[in-house]
Amino acid sequence: MTDRNEPTLPDGESGLVRIRLDIAYDGGDFSGWATQPGRRTVQATLQDALETLFGLDRVALVVAGRTDAGVHAVGQVAHCDVPIQRWDEIRPTAIRSLTGILPPDVRVLSAARAPEHFDARFGAVWRHYRYRISDAAYGTMPLSRHDVAAWKHGLDAERMQRAAQMLLGLHEFAAFCRGREGATTIRTLQELQVLRVEDQVIIDFRADAFCHSMVRSLVGALAAVGEGRRPVEWPASLLNRSRREDSVRVAPAHGLTLLRVGYPPDAVLLDRVQQSRMVRTAADSDVRAGDTRPS
Amino acid sequence: MTDRNEPTLPDGESGLVRIRLDIAYDGGDFSGWATQPGRRTVQATLQDALETLFGLDRVALVVAGRTDAGVHAVGQVAHCDVPIQRWDEIRPTAIRSLTGILPPDVRVLSAARAPEHFDARFGAVWRHYRYRISDAAYGTMPLSRHDVAAWKHGLDAERMQRAAQMLLGLHEFAAFCRGREGATTIRTLQELQVLRVEDQVIIDFRADAFCHSMVRSLVGALAAVGEGRRPVEWPASLLNRSRREDSVRVAPAHGLTLLRVGYPPDAVLLDRVQQSRMVRTAADSDVRAGDTRPS
Repeated sequence: MTDRNEPTLPDGESGLVRIRLDIAYDGGDFSGWATQPGRRTVQATLQDALETLFGLDRVALVVAGRTDAGVHAVGQVAHCDVPIQRWDEIRPTAIRSLTGILPPDVRVLSAARAPEHFDARFGAVWRHYRYRISDAAYGTMPLSRHDVAAWKHGLDAERMQRAAQMLLGLHEFAAFCRGREGATTIRTLQELQVLRVEDQVIIDFRADAFCHSMVRSLVGALAAVGEGRRPVEWPASLLNRSRREDSVRVAPAHGLTLLRVGYPPDAVLLDRVQQSRMVRTAADSDVRAGDTRPS
Repeated sequence: MTDRNEPTLPDGESGLVRIRLDIAYDGGDFSGWATQPGRRTVQATLQDALETLFGLDRVALVVAGRTDAGVHAVGQVAHCDVPIQRWDEIRPTAIRSLTGILPPDVRVLSAARAPEHFDARFGAVWRHYRYRISDAAYGTMPLSRHDVAAWKHGLDAERMQRAAQMLLGLHEFAAFCRGREGATTIRTLQELQVLRVEDQVIIDFRADAFCHSMVRSLVGALAAVGEGRRPVEWPASLLNRSRREDSVRVAPAHGLTLLRVGYPPDAVLLDRVQQSRMVRTAADSDVRAGDTRPS
């Protein structure tokens, strides 16, 4: 089966085609994205479904943001390489078939042949996460309780927004990161907005990448400002330290959702992938590094 | 404890005060609002919590909309009568206390002394329900799967909206109602809007009241139009029949949410309550009638 928009000539010698998957999940019943023996993970659940769909022994997914246990996604992106002939047969009904195979807490929203040089992880130029808090006396609205965190103290969102603006830009975020010795924790925080919408405080984060626990640690630091326990300048005063700051609390995972991942125009994808791969591998020999994993 | 805004003089001889409760729940794990022996219901769960809060043997709730099993609410309204002295003691911390007592799928959003003659059921002038459908190939987004119904066929929302406009006004809705012999099924449909928002079709219903299964039957009839299985005029052609029309499918309960209940200004509450009580009791001897119960 051919399609005018999706040329079916084999990719060079391999006979494989790279597929971009846009993915959503409720992280509540998953032990995060990454496969772990004996645990229910998003990656293993999706790989199993794709192996069933394509009739293959092994489909390996590469993901943009390796979310932690309990963290949700509405705009996760991953890629896999599959035989071009199988893709051509399956493409027209791929999404409906996956909907039938997958459990209801994970969905493939779209699957399409990726542009040349596309890499879900190394091609990404930003990740956009949203954290939602309800500080109402009633906790969270029942229908929102799975993706909004309840806060026992009232929060001053305007104060939090002032503290947030001091964190923007290129910094050493080690004070807000957990994790691996030797991996770089220098990141560019491109956007950080705190907004009150009725009983909710909504915090939007956009960065080139996030180190492990960075988003949830920043939420914890900003909430301490919002409660009035810390001065507005406190979160920024922790920038450029060399190690994790233990007084920063990590906010609960279920308030966090990966909203969207940004990629450059197709024409510059190869440059981006090569550049990103070099930077990351300098300090980071493990391809499965935590550097795209927030929480 | 006294409060300038909430006078604490006893109500006549009774020593009781009427409390208006605004309530939200995820209906997924409840067998509907109304207490049934051996079933988990919203009413029984709330009454138990209020009995604990007030230290009373029995608190009886009267509700605006008796939702069916699986139906949600974000703006349900109920009232109860409690001793004025207990209310004055408990009022300042009532919501936080209830949040601690209640399970997370039901919440009391506010509790306040009701205006004179307030009656949650007979005082209501409209109920506003929303039904949400996703007709995407991927079904529903995982985080919305509890309150959005998946539809296997694509829906033409514009066609549904045209069919909807023919249903507005005062009609005999027996074709769309299930249930009790002899109860009136004449209703005034004040508003009915069908709107597509990305992958969702959102249907808003506002009426003086709804008979049993009316909202979900209207959704089923409109969806048949949206799929192209029935002409635009079909739902309206079923108005003013004397009995249920079996070819109308009842849409799944979990897509339906009670958004809001409307009450008249305090000054005309007594008139409304008396008028409503007379109309309803004419054909309807059971005070717990299904006439405010949609689904």
